[in-house]
Amino acid sequence: MKKVAVLMGSDSDLPVVGKVFSVFDELGIPYEAHVCSAHRTPEEARALALNAKKNGFGVIIAAAGMAAHLAGAIAANTALPVIGIPIKSGGLGGIDALLSTVQMPSGIPVATVAIDGAKNAAYLAAEILALSDEGLYEKLLQCRGKEKKSVLEKDAHLAEKYNK
Amino acid sequence: MKKVAVLMGSDSDLPVVGKVFSVFDELGIPYEAHVCSAHRTPEEARALALNAKKNGFGVIIAAAGMAAHLAGAIAANTALPVIGIPIKSGGLGGIDALLSTVQMPSGIPVATVAIDGAKNAAYLAAEILALSDEGLYEKLLQCRGKEKKSVLEKDAHLAEKYNK
Amino acid sequence: MKKVAVLMGSDSDLPVVGKVFSVFDELGIPYEAHVCSAHRTPEEARALALNAKKNGFGVIIAAAGMAAHLAGAIAANTALPVIGIPIKSGGLGGIDALLSTVQMPSGIPVATVAIDGAKNAAYLAAEILALSDEGLYEKLLQCRGKEKKSVLEKDAHLAEKYNK
Amino acid sequence: MKKVAVLMGSDSDLPVVGKVFSVFDELGIPYEAHVCSAHRTPEEARALALNAKKNGFGVIIAAAGMAAHLAGAIAANTALPVIGIPIKSGGLGGIDALLSTVQMPSGIPVATVAIDGAKNAAYLAAEILALSDEGLYEKLLQCRGKEKKSVLEKDAHLAEKYNK
Amino acid sequence: MKKVAVLMGSDSDLPVVGKVFSVFDELGIPYEAHVCSAHRTPEEARALALNAKKNGFGVIIAAAGMAAHLAGAIAANTALPVIGIPIKSGGLGGIDALLSTVQMPSGIPVATVAIDGAKNAAYLAAEILALSDEGLYEKLLQCRGKEKKSVLEKDAHLAEKYNK
Amino acid sequence: MKKVAVLMGSDSDLPVVGKVFSVFDELGIPYEAHVCSAHRTPEEARALALNAKKNGFGVIIAAAGMAAHLAGAIAANTALPVIGIPIKSGGLGGIDALLSTVQMPSGIPVATVAIDGAKNAAYLAAEILALSDEGLYEKLLQCRGKEKKSVLEKDAHLAEKYNK
Amino acid sequence: MKKVAVLMGSDSDLPVVGKVFSVFDELGIPYEAHVCSAHRTPEEARALALNAKKNGFGVIIAAAGMAAHLAGAIAANTALPVIGIPIKSGGLGGIDALLSTVQMPSGIPVATVAIDGAKNAAYLAAEILALSDEGLYEKLLQCRGKEKKSVLEKDAHLAEKYNK
Amino acid sequence: MKKVAVLMGSDSDLPVVGKVFSVFDELGIPYEAHVCSAHRTPEEARALALNAKKNGFGVIIAAAGMAAHLAGAIAANTALPVIGIPIKSGGLGGIDALLSTVQMPSGIPVATVAIDGAKNAAYLAAEILALSDEGLYEKLLQCRGKEKKSVLEKDAHLAEKYNK
Repeated sequence: MKKVAVLMGSDSDLPVVGKVFSVFDELGIPYEAHVCSAHRTPEEARALALNAKKNGFGVIIAAAGMAAHLAGAIAANTALPVIGIPIKSGGLGGIDALLSTVQMPSGIPVATVAIDGAKNAAYLAAEILALSDEGLYEKLLQCRGKEKKSVLEKDAHLAEKYNK
Repeated sequence: MKKVAVLMGSDSDLPVVGKVFSVFDELGIPYEAHVCSAHRTPEEARALALNAKKNGFGVIIAAAGMAAHLAGAIAANTALPVIGIPIKSGGLGGIDALLSTVQMPSGIPVATVAIDGAKNAAYLAAEILALSDEGLYEKLLQCRGKEKKSVLEKDAHLAEKYNK
Repeated sequence: MKKVAVLMGSDSDLPVVGKVFSVFDELGIPYEAHVCSAHRTPEEARALALNAKKNGFGVIIAAAGMAAHLAGAIAANTALPVIGIPIKSGGLGGIDALLSTVQMPSGIPVATVAIDGAKNAAYLAAEILALSDEGLYEKLLQCRGKEKKSVLEKDAHLAEKYNK
Repeated sequence: MKKVAVLMGSDSDLPVVGKVFSVFDELGIPYEAHVCSAHRTPEEARALALNAKKNGFGVIIAAAGMAAHLAGAIAANTALPVIGIPIKSGGLGGIDALLSTVQMPSGIPVATVAIDGAKNAAYLAAEILALSDEGLYEKLLQCRGKEKKSVLEKDAHLAEKYNK
Repeated sequence: MKKVAVLMGSDSDLPVVGKVFSVFDELGIPYEAHVCSAHRTPEEARALALNAKKNGFGVIIAAAGMAAHLAGAIAANTALPVIGIPIKSGGLGGIDALLSTVQMPSGIPVATVAIDGAKNAAYLAAEILALSDEGLYEKLLQCRGKEKKSVLEKDAHLAEKYNK
Repeated sequence: MKKVAVLMGSDSDLPVVGKVFSVFDELGIPYEAHVCSAHRTPEEARALALNAKKNGFGVIIAAAGMAAHLAGAIAANTALPVIGIPIKSGGLGGIDALLSTVQMPSGIPVATVAIDGAKNAAYLAAEILALSDEGLYEKLLQCRGKEKKSVLEKDAHLAEKYNK
Repeated sequence: MKKVAVLMGSDSDLPVVGKVFSVFDELGIPYEAHVCSAHRTPEEARALALNAKKNGFGVIIAAAGMAAHLAGAIAANTALPVIGIPIKSGGLGGIDALLSTVQMPSGIPVATVAIDGAKNAAYLAAEILALSDEGLYEKLLQCRGKEKKSVLEKDAHLAEKYNK
Repeated sequence: MKKVAVLMGSDSDLPVVGKVFSVFDELGIPYEAHVCSAHRTPEEARALALNAKKNGFGVIIAAAGMAAHLAGAIAANTALPVIGIPIKSGGLGGIDALLSTVQMPSGIPVATVAIDGAKNAAYLAAEILALSDEGLYEKLLQCRGKEKKSVLEKDAHLAEKYNK
């Protein structure tokens, strides 16, 4: 299976981005994690993007806060799908990172998920890889089944407590 | 090649969403377009999502404005990758549609592009399909090459006029 | 009397939504509470809405955060009045949930109350049910009377302390 | 059937609020329209609210822009359901009117619809009145059926033009 | 000297509004404080405004949060200058209260100060009363002198510590 | 009677600020208008503020757009009441000017009115001057009476047309 | 004198960015203009930044809209001062470009000016170059003198027309 | 070398602004720090700006929160480059200070950095001074080298822990 590159602009993003790893571990998706900054290590970011395909990556996830350029900088150097996670930091609640990630110019898309939406970045990557992997698709359906079951159990619990 | 379903909440979104068709026509990607509303035709939207995989779709693009629920409603009923285009309408410049599309709960991702970012929705779908289609990947690189050439020509034109 | 269905997208919304129950208990309004997600249990949400009228419900309250689609998803499947409570969560203070709940397209209204405005959702439901229940209307006037008395007492207390 | 009072803060709101009348005419709901300002005619607004119930009104719709206090001022003086329409005016796209209308304090709810969402205000009022009027409920379902049919026709039209 | 009425929508606003009292005590301005709600005690709010002039008030300060209608409701019933303090509460940082207070329609002004800007509300009231009270004007200049001296002392302290 | 100084940061603000003059002409309030920039003519702005009291001014109105510093810069140099009009210009609808005008630090208040709220700035100045001018107070009440009559006439007109 | 590089993400930015050229022509500052995109021509943008110093540039101005990464991408590759102009485009009035330009991470500053503030970008570049060019500093003072004179003339004109 | 003046509107800004001093100490840039308020000590702020050049300053950094006028007030009185740091305070997360600092009118630029972006203000000042100081330019490159090395080390550390 193709690997996913999981990039974060700073290691302070790890508490959020770490949730990507959990999902991938659960689904059996191979990945490689990197601290990699559009502004502090632009050369490394560029090299990573340029070589991603030939290095066996299928999808790239990039998380960054504030003027979150990382996902866009990666997308500028590869035609692999790039998923952006806007990270909340500072006083604006992540709206700066969201707009910096999602408002990309025509021709260079970034698939943006919710602010701090690391789990969904992982699931989106999985959905993309599952297009050519029926087994992974099945696992995704099972995850959804579990989520559904968990909601139904909580509902039953609530009903017991509140509904007369 | 898998097809792309291109859904819009209202046919008034067509001037924006139509740009998806142009990109797909250029890249040779098969697609099917539908007016389909999360709120006015919820049953049709749901059926479309539930049957998308077995009907040969690989990716779904959903465009909607205001409380833009369409992409999320589709994503809730399929594990195929769903791309959301927030449409600008009303007085808030599309920020309502952006937040309604991108701020999805864990487990049900929507790959969100820029407000009115129809072209990027198309390119993102193409990048996803190109993971298992080298020819399409090559076409995407050619598109990027053309974009680059166009910028360089505009730069040359500018240089001629302004740089002494 | 018709019952009220009180739905929440996640059981983490309970500290806010629980205030609905207190108001209903005080007013003697019958209700049924459910955890029910537009995205994780779309089928259950839809069934609940489709059957609400014949199951004896008169009003539905739906609370959700972020891309808060729940109220809209319910409203799409019933012509009973649906009241939406946008829940504050994440970094944006609930403005995402507010816009996702209130900016509904023509034809499918959601009666939206303040961010985390669970008590008002309950009072609004009561006002609606009171249209055909004079006794309930009287109770609502008594509640208002109590609220007024409480403000006047606080005013008296303040006057004593600060006004010479 | 109970009447609906349709209030607007200024007659410049008529192009938007007029859509309420069309829906009510179609559904056969009796209504009375008033220009009535929370700030310029506070006494009249108050009297209108205080007497609404005994004057045969069941629901009150109030539309206002900017620091849109009208719906709240009405709600403060009646326990009938009050529906607020935030009107877009000035430079902020209606977000001022939305927040002024929806962020009501506990005890005094305003059922808020979308910015300029006059049609939904009318449909919401109809849904409320339909709780004790099966015939009106049937008409509402027919409206929804028409809306659905219209979407399906547009979809068919689109399919004809774009889907090969 | 004319008195100032200091109104707050809820006694939970007291920690902020209390700063008004301190400034008035320092300047020797007579005042009367009231808890008074545009929505829970509309009649009392109205009576207070209608009688303010004949009861010896010269200026009215009104503080409220969320859909902060209090200042506007007072201003609608008197031609005395009304000063509005938007109170921060809930998740939106007070922007809802600011817009609800400041965006008043033509004819009914509210002199709005900063979010939680209780001290400035007091100083503004003092500046207004000082127009016909030279002694008060002198006291205001002395306050400014003290503020200036405090800044200069802090500057000297900083210089000592950091400037070599 | 004391005069009002009416300052604008640029003569492009005249279409908005001109409404101040109309109100003052109607009420017989003497005024003096100036183009005066906190940034381009800081010395003149300062001198104007420092000398305002001895030059017979009682209130100062200052209008500016974008990083609207004018009202604050004036308020920093006088203890007369200063009224700020945030002017809408550029892409942000005036929210930049509103925040720059209203969010003043403790000790230096600016009485802020709505974005482009020139008429209310004039009425607020009149209310302030009317504290020591019964005749002016009467005129203000008459203005309000006229406004009220105008609303009632519009209401009558509407009733004739729409209420059956 | 060192040259200024004036970069724009798209030639559609020229109507705004062209104002930079006028200021530079007036002040006699040499410059070179380029269309250069962080996303479409990342290699050229990088090369331009890396070679800017040795090619005789002293300051770089970069203008871009939406997820405006250009200024940041340039700043990541040079330690010359980089000035960012956020360009208004799309529905959000330029707030997306402002946040994407100004919210840079520690270590890589971008000197951001107002949305569409091309003239100020030019003046800022001139102020920077004037630190080692007394003649240019004098010219800047003359510009300010002209601006001041223009404001004073407009003031005189206004006084003539409105002040009695 | 020319000195940098580091101004803050209040000594409560010191925890943020202090980071400027650390950067300058590391780079050997001489500076002078002042508490200096556009509103409380306008005369001192003006004098500081007017005399900055002849007192040996080359760049001025000004930090302020809320209606952050300090940087603009300084820039109005000097043609030296002025760098503005918007300080987060109150409920709006610093967006008020950002807009008040960056949205300057034509002719009077303020080089604005991120909200609370004190370090970048220092680096920007250093980049400006380095234009005529090769040694300082070298030090800046070394800083960037260190930043890069730190990112690469964190990346290595991450790789060790997560990449199999």
